[in-house]
Amino acid sequence: MGLRLVAEPVPGLPEIEPGDDLAAAIASAAAAAGMPIDAETVVVIAQKVVSKEERRLVALETVTPTPDARELAIQTDKDPRVVQLVLDESEEIIRAAPGVLIARTRTGLVCANAGIDRSNLPADDMACLLPTDADASARRLRGGLRERIGSPPAVVVSDSFGRPWRLGQVDVAIGCAGLAPLDDRRGSVDAVGRELSATIDAAADAAAAAAALVRSKSGREAVVLVRGLARYVTPEDGPGAAAIVRPRAEDLFL
Amino acid sequence: MGLRLVAEPVPGLPEIEPGDDLAAAIASAAAAAGMPIDAETVVVIAQKVVSKEERRLVALETVTPTPDARELAIQTDKDPRVVQLVLDESEEIIRAAPGVLIARTRTGLVCANAGIDRSNLPADDMACLLPTDADASARRLRGGLRERIGSPPAVVVSDSFGRPWRLGQVDVAIGCAGLAPLDDRRGSVDAVGRELSATIDAAADAAAAAAALVRSKSGREAVVLVRGLARYVTPEDGPGAAAIVRPRAEDLFL
Repeated sequence: MGLRLVAEPVPGLPEIEPGDDLAAAIASAAAAAGMPIDAETVVVIAQKVVSKEERRLVALETVTPTPDARELAIQTDKDPRVVQLVLDESEEIIRAAPGVLIARTRTGLVCANAGIDRSNLPADDMACLLPTDADASARRLRGGLRERIGSPPAVVVSDSFGRPWRLGQVDVAIGCAGLAPLDDRRGSVDAVGRELSATIDAAADAAAAAAALVRSKSGREAVVLVRGLARYVTPEDGPGAAAIVRPRAEDLFL
Repeated sequence: MGLRLVAEPVPGLPEIEPGDDLAAAIASAAAAAGMPIDAETVVVIAQKVVSKEERRLVALETVTPTPDARELAIQTDKDPRVVQLVLDESEEIIRAAPGVLIARTRTGLVCANAGIDRSNLPADDMACLLPTDADASARRLRGGLRERIGSPPAVVVSDSFGRPWRLGQVDVAIGCAGLAPLDDRRGSVDAVGRELSATIDAAADAAAAAAALVRSKSGREAVVLVRGLARYVTPEDGPGAAAIVRPRAEDLFL
Protein backbone atom coordinates (compact mmCIF):
# COMPACT_ATOMS: atom_id res chain seq x y z
CA MET A 1 0.00 0.00 0.00
CA GLY A 2 1.20 3.51 -0.74
CA LEU A 3 1.69 6.26 1.76
CA ARG A 4 -1.10 8.59 2.76
CA LEU A 5 -0.49 12.07 4.09
CA VAL A 6 -3.24 13.79 6.09
CA ALA A 7 -2.91 17.38 7.32
CA GLU A 8 -5.49 19.04 9.57
CA PRO A 9 -5.41 22.19 11.69
CA VAL A 10 -6.07 21.85 15.41
CA PRO A 11 -9.14 23.98 16.17
CA GLY A 12 -9.71 25.85 19.39
CA LEU A 13 -6.14 26.75 20.29
CA PRO A 14 -6.42 29.75 22.63
CA GLU A 15 -4.58 32.99 21.95
CA ILE A 16 -1.05 32.42 23.23
CA GLU A 17 0.33 35.09 25.57
CA PRO A 18 3.96 35.60 26.52
CA GLY A 19 4.97 32.94 29.01
CA ASP A 20 2.02 30.61 28.33
CA ASP A 21 2.65 26.87 28.17
CA LEU A 22 2.25 26.24 24.45
CA ALA A 23 2.79 22.46 24.61
CA ALA A 24 0.03 22.16 27.21
CA ALA A 25 -2.28 24.31 25.11
CA ILE A 26 -1.65 22.18 22.02
CA ALA A 27 -2.16 18.91 23.90
CA SER A 28 -5.45 20.19 25.38
CA ALA A 29 -6.80 21.60 22.14
CA ALA A 30 -5.96 18.41 20.21
CA ALA A 31 -7.55 16.23 22.91
CA ALA A 32 -10.67 18.41 22.97
CA ALA A 33 -10.93 18.13 19.18
CA GLY A 34 -10.54 14.37 19.27
CA MET A 35 -7.27 14.57 17.33
CA PRO A 36 -4.77 12.11 18.80
CA ILE A 37 -1.09 13.05 18.75
CA ASP A 38 1.27 10.09 18.71
CA ALA A 39 4.94 9.38 18.01
CA GLU A 40 4.30 9.35 14.25
CA THR A 41 2.44 12.66 14.19
CA VAL A 42 4.23 15.74 12.90
CA VAL A 43 3.03 18.80 14.83
CA VAL A 44 3.62 21.85 12.64
CA ILE A 45 3.52 25.08 14.64
CA ALA A 46 3.52 28.54 13.12
CA GLN A 47 6.49 30.57 14.30
CA LYS A 48 4.34 33.41 15.60
CA VAL A 49 2.84 31.51 18.53
CA VAL A 50 6.24 30.09 19.46
CA SER A 51 7.68 33.61 19.47
CA LYS A 52 4.81 34.85 21.61
CA GLU A 53 5.30 32.06 24.12
CA GLU A 54 9.03 32.84 24.19
CA ARG A 55 8.43 36.55 24.85
CA ARG A 56 9.92 37.60 21.53
CA LEU A 57 7.59 40.59 21.25
CA VAL A 58 9.12 44.04 21.30
CA ALA A 59 7.32 47.30 22.00
CA LEU A 60 8.65 49.62 19.30
CA GLU A 61 8.69 52.60 21.67
CA THR A 62 11.54 50.88 23.52
CA VAL A 63 13.75 50.76 20.41
CA THR A 64 16.18 53.58 19.65
CA PRO A 65 17.45 53.32 16.08
CA THR A 66 21.12 53.93 15.39
CA PRO A 67 22.20 56.23 12.55
CA ASP A 68 22.82 53.11 10.40
CA ALA A 69 19.27 51.94 10.99
CA ARG A 70 17.90 55.40 10.22
CA GLU A 71 19.76 55.50 6.93
CA LEU A 72 18.62 52.00 5.96
CA ALA A 73 15.07 52.93 6.95
CA ILE A 74 15.10 55.84 4.51
CA GLN A 75 16.52 53.60 1.79
CA THR A 76 13.86 50.93 2.38
CA ASP A 77 10.98 53.20 3.35
CA LYS A 78 10.51 51.30 6.61
CA ASP A 79 10.07 52.18 10.27
CA PRO A 80 13.61 52.89 11.60
CA ARG A 81 12.82 51.03 14.83
CA VAL A 82 11.86 47.90 12.88
CA VAL A 83 15.01 48.28 10.79
CA GLN A 84 17.02 48.47 14.01
CA LEU A 85 15.49 45.16 15.12
CA VAL A 86 16.29 43.63 11.73
CA LEU A 87 19.92 44.72 12.08
CA ASP A 88 20.06 43.34 15.63
CA GLU A 89 18.77 39.95 14.43
CA SER A 90 20.90 39.69 11.31
CA GLU A 91 24.41 38.77 10.38
CA GLU A 92 24.10 40.24 6.88
CA ILE A 93 21.79 42.41 4.81
CA ILE A 94 21.25 40.65 1.48
CA ARG A 95 19.20 43.28 -0.28
CA ALA A 96 17.84 46.71 0.54
CA ALA A 97 15.55 48.68 -1.76
CA PRO A 98 12.34 50.71 -1.37
CA GLY A 99 9.92 48.40 0.45
CA VAL A 100 12.45 45.57 0.53
CA LEU A 101 14.84 44.44 3.24
CA ILE A 102 16.16 40.88 2.91
CA ALA A 103 18.50 39.68 5.64
CA ARG A 104 20.41 36.61 6.72
CA THR A 105 19.60 36.00 10.38
CA ARG A 106 22.12 34.89 12.95
CA THR A 107 20.84 31.31 12.49
CA GLY A 108 21.37 31.50 8.71
CA LEU A 109 17.79 32.03 7.53
CA VAL A 110 17.49 34.34 4.54
CA CYS A 111 14.14 36.09 4.56
CA ALA A 112 12.37 39.45 4.46
CA ASN A 113 12.93 41.66 7.51
CA ALA A 114 14.85 38.90 9.30
CA GLY A 115 11.48 37.25 9.89
CA ILE A 116 10.19 40.16 11.97
CA ASP A 117 6.56 41.04 11.44
CA ARG A 118 3.74 43.02 12.91
CA SER A 119 0.51 41.13 12.11
CA ASN A 120 -1.53 39.21 14.68
CA LEU A 121 0.03 40.99 17.64
CA PRO A 122 -1.74 42.21 20.76
CA ALA A 123 -0.88 45.88 20.17
CA ASP A 124 -0.27 48.14 17.21
CA ASP A 125 3.13 49.42 18.19
CA MET A 126 4.75 46.04 18.49
CA ALA A 127 6.96 43.68 16.48
CA CYS A 128 7.47 39.94 16.72
CA LEU A 129 10.97 38.47 16.34
CA LEU A 130 11.76 34.91 15.27
CA PRO A 131 12.61 32.51 18.09
CA THR A 132 16.28 32.89 19.04
CA ASP A 133 16.89 29.22 18.18
CA ALA A 134 13.83 27.61 16.59
CA ASP A 135 15.43 24.14 16.73
CA ALA A 136 15.73 24.53 20.49
CA SER A 137 12.09 25.67 20.52
CA ALA A 138 11.08 22.54 18.60
CA ARG A 139 13.01 20.29 20.97
CA ARG A 140 11.49 21.98 23.99
CA LEU A 141 7.96 21.73 22.60
CA ARG A 142 8.55 18.08 21.68
CA GLY A 143 9.62 17.43 25.26
CA GLY A 144 6.58 19.27 26.59
CA LEU A 145 4.24 17.27 24.36
CA ARG A 146 5.93 14.01 25.39
CA GLU A 147 5.29 14.88 29.03
CA ARG A 148 1.62 15.46 28.41
CA ILE A 149 0.93 12.74 25.84
CA GLY A 150 3.36 9.98 26.76
CA SER A 151 5.06 9.73 23.38
CA PRO A 152 7.14 12.38 21.63
CA PRO A 153 5.66 13.56 18.33
CA ALA A 154 7.82 15.22 15.71
CA VAL A 155 7.69 19.03 15.87
CA VAL A 156 8.23 21.57 13.11
CA VAL A 157 8.33 25.33 13.68
CA SER A 158 7.31 26.91 10.38
CA ASP A 159 7.38 30.33 8.79
CA SER A 160 6.37 31.72 5.39
CA PHE A 161 9.34 32.76 3.24
CA GLY A 162 9.56 34.40 -0.14
CA ARG A 163 11.90 32.91 -2.73
CA PRO A 164 14.19 34.24 -5.44
CA TRP A 165 12.86 33.78 -8.97
CA ARG A 166 9.40 32.68 -7.85
CA LEU A 167 6.51 34.81 -6.62
CA GLY A 168 4.51 33.98 -3.54
CA GLN A 169 5.53 32.53 -0.24
CA VAL A 170 5.84 28.94 0.87
CA ASP A 171 6.22 27.74 4.41
CA VAL A 172 9.55 26.27 5.42
CA ALA A 173 10.83 24.63 8.59
CA ILE A 174 12.85 27.12 10.64
CA GLY A 175 13.09 24.55 13.44
CA CYS A 176 12.39 20.85 13.85
CA ALA A 177 12.86 17.94 16.25
CA GLY A 178 12.11 14.26 15.71
CA LEU A 179 11.91 14.69 11.94
CA ALA A 180 14.63 14.21 9.35
CA PRO A 181 15.15 17.72 7.97
CA LEU A 182 16.75 16.27 4.84
CA ASP A 183 16.05 12.85 3.36
CA ASP A 184 19.23 11.79 1.61
CA ARG A 185 18.55 9.29 -1.14
CA ARG A 186 21.92 9.58 -2.83
CA GLY A 187 23.26 6.14 -3.59
CA SER A 188 19.81 4.63 -4.06
CA VAL A 189 18.79 3.60 -7.56
CA ASP A 190 15.92 4.45 -9.83
CA ALA A 191 13.41 1.98 -11.28
CA VAL A 192 15.87 0.88 -13.96
CA GLY A 193 18.88 0.63 -11.66
CA ARG A 194 20.56 3.94 -12.48
CA GLU A 195 21.89 5.78 -9.48
CA LEU A 196 19.71 8.74 -8.55
CA SER A 197 21.56 12.04 -8.70
CA ALA A 198 21.15 14.98 -6.36
CA THR A 199 18.15 13.54 -4.56
CA ILE A 200 18.15 15.03 -1.12
CA ASP A 201 14.60 15.94 -0.24
CA ALA A 202 13.99 18.79 2.16
CA ALA A 203 11.32 16.78 3.95
CA ALA A 204 10.82 19.18 6.87
CA ASP A 205 10.29 22.11 4.48
CA ALA A 206 7.78 20.07 2.47
CA ALA A 207 5.91 19.16 5.66
CA ALA A 208 5.73 22.86 6.56
CA ALA A 209 4.46 23.70 3.06
CA ALA A 210 1.79 21.00 3.25
CA ALA A 211 0.60 22.23 6.64
CA ALA A 212 0.26 25.81 5.38
CA LEU A 213 -2.26 24.68 2.76
CA VAL A 214 -4.85 23.91 5.44
CA ARG A 215 -4.07 26.66 7.92
CA SER A 216 -6.15 29.79 7.89
CA LYS A 217 -3.94 32.87 7.84
CA SER A 218 -6.08 34.69 10.37
CA GLY A 219 -3.68 33.53 13.05
CA ARG A 220 -6.21 31.34 14.79
CA GLU A 221 -4.98 28.04 13.39
CA ALA A 222 -1.36 28.04 14.35
CA VAL A 223 -1.02 24.28 14.74
CA VAL A 224 -1.50 21.62 12.07
CA LEU A 225 -1.13 17.88 12.61
CA VAL A 226 0.43 16.02 9.70
CA ARG A 227 0.15 12.23 9.66
CA GLY A 228 1.59 9.67 7.28
CA LEU A 229 5.20 10.88 7.41
CA ALA A 230 6.51 7.97 9.51
CA ARG A 231 9.33 7.46 7.05
CA TYR A 232 10.79 10.84 8.02
CA VAL A 233 10.10 10.61 11.76
CA THR A 234 13.03 9.77 14.05
CA PRO A 235 13.14 8.71 17.71
CA GLU A 236 15.94 11.19 18.48
CA ASP A 237 15.52 14.95 18.14
CA GLY A 238 18.04 14.94 15.29
CA PRO A 239 20.04 17.79 13.78
CA GLY A 240 17.10 20.17 13.40
CA ALA A 241 16.40 22.64 10.63
CA ALA A 242 19.88 24.08 11.09
CA ALA A 243 20.96 21.19 8.85
CA ILE A 244 18.93 22.71 5.99
CA VAL A 245 20.88 25.97 6.03
CA ARG A 246 23.24 25.80 3.09
CA PRO A 247 26.81 26.66 4.08
CA ARG A 248 27.59 29.97 2.40
CA ALA A 249 30.68 28.59 0.71
CA GLU A 250 28.60 25.86 -0.92
CA ASP A 251 25.85 28.01 -2.33
CA LEU A 252 25.46 26.77 -5.88
CA PHE A 253 23.00 29.39 -6.98
CA LEU A 254 24.42 32.75 -6.02
CA MET B 1 -14.83 22.56 10.60
CA GLY B 2 -11.25 23.01 9.48
CA LEU B 3 -9.78 21.92 6.21
CA ARG B 4 -8.30 18.48 5.72
CA LEU B 5 -5.66 17.74 3.13
CA VAL B 6 -5.13 14.15 1.99
CA ALA B 7 -2.39 13.16 -0.44
CA GLU B 8 -2.02 9.63 -1.83
CA PRO B 9 -0.05 8.23 -4.75
CA VAL B 10 -1.94 6.38 -7.47
CA PRO B 11 -0.56 2.84 -7.55
CA GLY B 12 -0.25 0.74 -10.67
CA LEU B 13 0.44 3.44 -13.24
CA PRO B 14 2.15 1.66 -16.13
CA GLU B 15 5.52 2.79 -17.48
CA ILE B 16 4.71 5.66 -19.84
CA GLU B 17 6.24 5.46 -23.32
CA PRO B 18 6.56 8.30 -25.79
CA GLY B 19 3.19 8.96 -27.37
CA ASP B 20 1.16 7.09 -24.75
CA ASP B 21 -2.12 8.58 -23.56
CA LEU B 22 -1.15 9.69 -20.04
CA ALA B 23 -4.59 11.02 -19.08
CA ALA B 24 -6.16 7.67 -20.00
CA ALA B 25 -3.49 5.80 -18.03
CA ILE B 26 -4.08 7.98 -14.95
CA ALA B 27 -7.87 7.61 -15.16
CA SER B 28 -7.57 3.81 -15.49
CA ALA B 29 -5.04 3.40 -12.68
CA ALA B 30 -7.05 5.60 -10.32
CA ALA B 31 -10.27 3.73 -11.13
CA ALA B 32 -8.56 0.36 -10.65
CA ALA B 33 -7.24 1.54 -7.27
CA GLY B 34 -10.67 2.75 -6.19
CA MET B 35 -9.43 6.35 -6.02
CA PRO B 36 -12.10 8.67 -7.40
CA ILE B 37 -10.96 11.80 -9.24
CA ASP B 38 -13.45 14.66 -9.17
CA ALA B 39 -13.53 18.39 -9.86
CA GLU B 40 -12.02 19.14 -6.43
CA THR B 41 -9.13 16.70 -6.77
CA VAL B 42 -5.68 18.05 -7.54
CA VAL B 43 -3.80 15.56 -9.72
CA VAL B 44 -0.08 16.15 -9.21
CA ILE B 45 1.98 14.58 -11.99
CA ALA B 46 5.76 14.29 -11.93
CA GLN B 47 7.32 16.09 -14.88
CA LYS B 48 9.20 13.01 -16.06
CA VAL B 49 6.14 11.07 -17.21
CA VAL B 50 4.71 14.15 -18.90
CA SER B 51 7.99 14.63 -20.76
CA LYS B 52 8.02 10.98 -21.79
CA GLU B 53 4.47 11.18 -23.11
CA GLU B 54 5.42 14.35 -25.00
CA ARG B 55 8.45 12.70 -26.61
CA ARG B 56 10.90 14.98 -24.83
CA LEU B 57 13.55 12.26 -24.68
CA VAL B 58 16.77 12.82 -26.59
CA ALA B 59 19.30 10.16 -27.56
CA LEU B 60 22.61 11.79 -26.69
CA GLU B 61 24.31 10.27 -29.74
CA THR B 62 22.19 12.61 -31.88
CA VAL B 63 23.55 15.74 -30.15
CA THR B 64 26.60 17.54 -31.55
CA PRO B 65 27.95 20.01 -29.01
CA THR B 66 29.06 23.43 -30.19
CA PRO B 67 32.42 24.86 -29.07
CA ASP B 68 30.56 26.92 -26.43
CA ALA B 69 28.97 23.77 -25.02
CA ARG B 70 32.33 21.99 -25.01
CA GLU B 71 33.94 24.81 -23.08
CA LEU B 72 31.09 24.95 -20.56
CA ALA B 73 31.27 21.16 -20.23
CA ILE B 74 34.91 21.36 -19.23
CA GLN B 75 34.14 24.13 -16.76
CA THR B 76 31.27 22.15 -15.18
CA ASP B 77 32.71 18.65 -15.58
CA LYS B 78 29.58 17.55 -17.47
CA ASP B 79 28.82 15.64 -20.66
CA PRO B 80 29.16 18.21 -23.49
CA ARG B 81 26.08 16.79 -25.19
CA VAL B 82 23.99 17.36 -22.07
CA VAL B 83 25.44 20.86 -21.77
CA GLN B 84 24.41 21.50 -25.37
CA LEU B 85 20.84 20.50 -24.50
CA VAL B 86 20.93 22.79 -21.45
CA LEU B 87 22.03 25.70 -23.65
CA ASP B 88 19.29 24.90 -26.18
CA GLU B 89 16.64 24.95 -23.45
CA SER B 90 17.88 28.06 -21.63
CA GLU B 91 17.69 31.77 -21.99
CA GLU B 92 20.46 32.39 -19.46
CA ILE B 93 23.12 30.51 -17.53
CA ILE B 94 22.90 31.61 -13.89
CA ARG B 95 25.87 29.74 -12.49
CA ALA B 96 28.52 27.39 -13.82
CA ALA B 97 31.10 25.66 -11.63
CA PRO B 98 32.52 22.15 -11.33
CA GLY B 99 29.51 19.85 -11.05
CA VAL B 100 27.09 22.79 -11.15
CA LEU B 101 25.10 24.27 -14.03
CA ILE B 102 22.13 26.42 -13.04
CA ALA B 103 20.08 27.86 -15.88
CA ARG B 104 17.00 29.93 -16.49
CA THR B 105 14.84 28.06 -18.99
CA ARG B 106 12.94 29.71 -21.82
CA THR B 107 9.81 29.54 -19.63
CA GLY B 108 11.60 31.32 -16.75
CA LEU B 109 12.30 28.37 -14.46
CA VAL B 110 15.63 28.62 -12.63
CA CYS B 111 16.96 25.15 -11.90
CA ALA B 112 19.91 22.79 -12.24
CA ASN B 113 20.67 21.70 -15.80
CA ALA B 114 17.56 23.45 -17.13
CA GLY B 115 15.57 20.58 -15.64
CA ILE B 116 17.25 18.01 -17.86
CA ASP B 117 18.00 14.70 -16.19
CA ARG B 118 18.97 11.14 -16.95
CA SER B 119 17.37 8.96 -14.26
CA ASN B 120 14.42 6.65 -14.88
CA LEU B 121 14.89 6.60 -18.64
CA PRO B 122 14.55 3.60 -20.93
CA ALA B 123 18.19 3.72 -22.10
CA ASP B 124 21.51 4.78 -20.67
CA ASP B 125 22.50 7.21 -23.38
CA MET B 126 19.44 9.38 -23.09
CA ALA B 127 18.31 12.64 -21.53
CA CYS B 128 14.86 13.91 -20.62
CA LEU B 129 13.94 17.55 -21.24
CA LEU B 130 11.23 19.49 -19.42
CA PRO B 131 7.93 19.84 -21.28
CA THR B 132 8.15 22.74 -23.75
CA ASP B 133 5.23 24.45 -21.98
CA ALA B 134 4.22 22.63 -18.81
CA ASP B 135 1.14 24.85 -18.37
CA ALA B 136 -0.06 23.69 -21.78
CA SER B 137 0.69 20.11 -20.67
CA ALA B 138 -1.40 20.61 -17.54
CA ARG B 139 -4.30 22.06 -19.55
CA ARG B 140 -4.14 19.21 -22.03
CA LEU B 141 -4.05 16.57 -19.31
CA ARG B 142 -6.90 18.29 -17.50
CA GLY B 143 -8.92 18.15 -20.73
CA GLY B 144 -8.03 14.49 -21.19
CA LEU B 145 -9.09 13.65 -17.65
CA ARG B 146 -12.33 15.57 -18.07
CA GLU B 147 -13.13 13.51 -21.16
CA ARG B 148 -12.62 10.26 -19.30
CA ILE B 149 -14.04 11.20 -15.91
CA GLY B 150 -16.75 13.72 -16.73
CA SER B 151 -15.44 16.51 -14.52
CA PRO B 152 -12.16 18.38 -14.85
CA PRO B 153 -9.81 17.94 -11.89
CA ALA B 154 -7.05 20.43 -11.18
CA VAL B 155 -3.69 19.34 -12.62
CA VAL B 156 -0.20 20.22 -11.43
CA VAL B 157 2.97 19.21 -13.27
CA SER B 158 5.71 19.08 -10.64
CA ASP B 159 9.48 18.89 -10.56
CA SER B 160 12.09 18.85 -7.77
CA PHE B 161 14.15 22.05 -7.59
CA GLY B 162 17.08 23.06 -5.43
CA ARG B 163 16.97 26.44 -3.72
CA PRO B 164 19.46 29.16 -2.87
CA TRP B 165 20.45 29.32 0.81
CA ARG B 166 18.72 26.04 1.71
CA LEU B 167 19.91 22.49 1.14
CA GLY B 168 17.72 19.78 -0.32
CA GLN B 169 15.12 19.88 -3.00
CA VAL B 170 11.43 20.62 -2.78
CA ASP B 171 8.90 20.00 -5.49
CA VAL B 172 7.39 23.02 -7.21
CA ALA B 173 4.65 23.45 -9.82
CA ILE B 174 6.19 23.96 -13.25
CA GLY B 175 2.71 23.78 -14.79
CA CYS B 176 -0.85 23.88 -13.54
CA ALA B 177 -4.45 24.16 -14.71
CA GLY B 178 -7.62 24.53 -12.66
CA LEU B 179 -5.66 25.59 -9.58
CA ALA B 180 -4.82 29.08 -8.37
CA PRO B 181 -1.02 29.21 -8.67
CA LEU B 182 -0.91 32.10 -6.21
CA ASP B 183 -3.43 32.80 -3.48
CA ASP B 184 -3.41 36.54 -2.97
CA ARG B 185 -4.56 37.49 0.51
CA ARG B 186 -3.35 41.06 0.42
CA GLY B 187 -6.04 43.35 1.73
CA SER B 188 -7.45 40.73 4.09
CA VAL B 189 -7.02 41.27 7.80
CA ASP B 190 -5.50 39.25 10.60
CA ALA B 191 -7.30 38.08 13.73
CA VAL B 192 -7.01 41.52 15.33
CA GLY B 193 -7.98 43.52 12.26
CA ARG B 194 -4.52 44.54 11.08
CA GLU B 195 -4.01 44.24 7.34
CA LEU B 196 -1.89 41.22 6.44
CA SER B 197 1.29 42.17 4.64
CA ALA B 198 2.92 40.31 1.78
CA THR B 199 0.67 37.31 2.05
CA ILE B 200 0.58 35.77 -1.36
CA ASP B 201 0.79 32.02 -0.93
CA ALA B 202 2.31 29.95 -3.71
CA ALA B 203 -0.46 27.38 -3.38
CA ALA B 204 0.47 25.33 -6.45
CA ASP B 205 4.07 25.00 -5.25
CA ALA B 206 2.87 23.91 -1.81
CA ALA B 207 0.57 21.31 -3.39
CA ALA B 208 3.53 19.95 -5.36
CA ALA B 209 5.66 19.84 -2.20
CA ALA B 210 2.94 18.01 -0.27
CA ALA B 211 2.56 15.43 -3.06
CA ALA B 212 6.29 14.72 -3.12
CA LEU B 213 6.18 13.62 0.53
CA VAL B 214 4.17 10.51 -0.36
CA ARG B 215 5.68 9.68 -3.73
CA SER B 216 8.39 7.07 -3.94
CA LYS B 217 11.34 8.38 -5.90
CA SER B 218 11.79 5.09 -7.77
CA GLY B 219 9.81 6.61 -10.61
CA ARG B 220 6.93 4.21 -10.21
CA GLU B 221 4.60 6.61 -8.42
CA ALA B 222 4.45 9.55 -10.74
CA VAL B 223 0.91 10.60 -9.87
CA VAL B 224 -0.42 11.76 -6.51
CA LEU B 225 -4.00 12.78 -5.79
CA VAL B 226 -4.37 15.66 -3.36
CA ARG B 227 -7.80 16.34 -1.87
CA GLY B 228 -9.02 19.08 0.42
CA LEU B 229 -7.72 22.01 -1.62
CA ALA B 230 -11.13 23.16 -2.90
CA ARG B 231 -10.34 26.70 -1.83
CA TYR B 232 -7.59 26.87 -4.45
CA VAL B 233 -9.42 24.97 -7.22
CA THR B 234 -10.92 27.02 -10.06
CA PRO B 235 -13.39 26.08 -12.80
CA GLU B 236 -11.27 27.75 -15.49
CA ASP B 237 -7.75 26.59 -16.36
CA GLY B 238 -6.39 29.89 -15.02
CA PRO B 239 -3.03 31.56 -15.60
CA GLY B 240 -0.92 28.47 -14.90
CA ALA B 241 2.42 28.23 -13.15
CA ALA B 242 3.79 30.87 -15.51
CA ALA B 243 2.19 33.33 -13.07
CA ILE B 244 4.60 32.14 -10.37
CA VAL B 245 7.68 33.12 -12.36
CA ARG B 246 8.94 36.35 -10.82
CA PRO B 247 9.56 39.02 -13.46
CA ARG B 248 13.31 39.54 -13.54
CA ALA B 249 13.00 43.26 -12.94
CA GLU B 250 11.07 42.58 -9.74
CA ASP B 251 13.41 40.08 -8.17
CA LEU B 252 13.75 41.27 -4.60
CA PHE B 253 16.41 38.83 -3.58
CA LEU B 254 19.17 38.92 -6.13
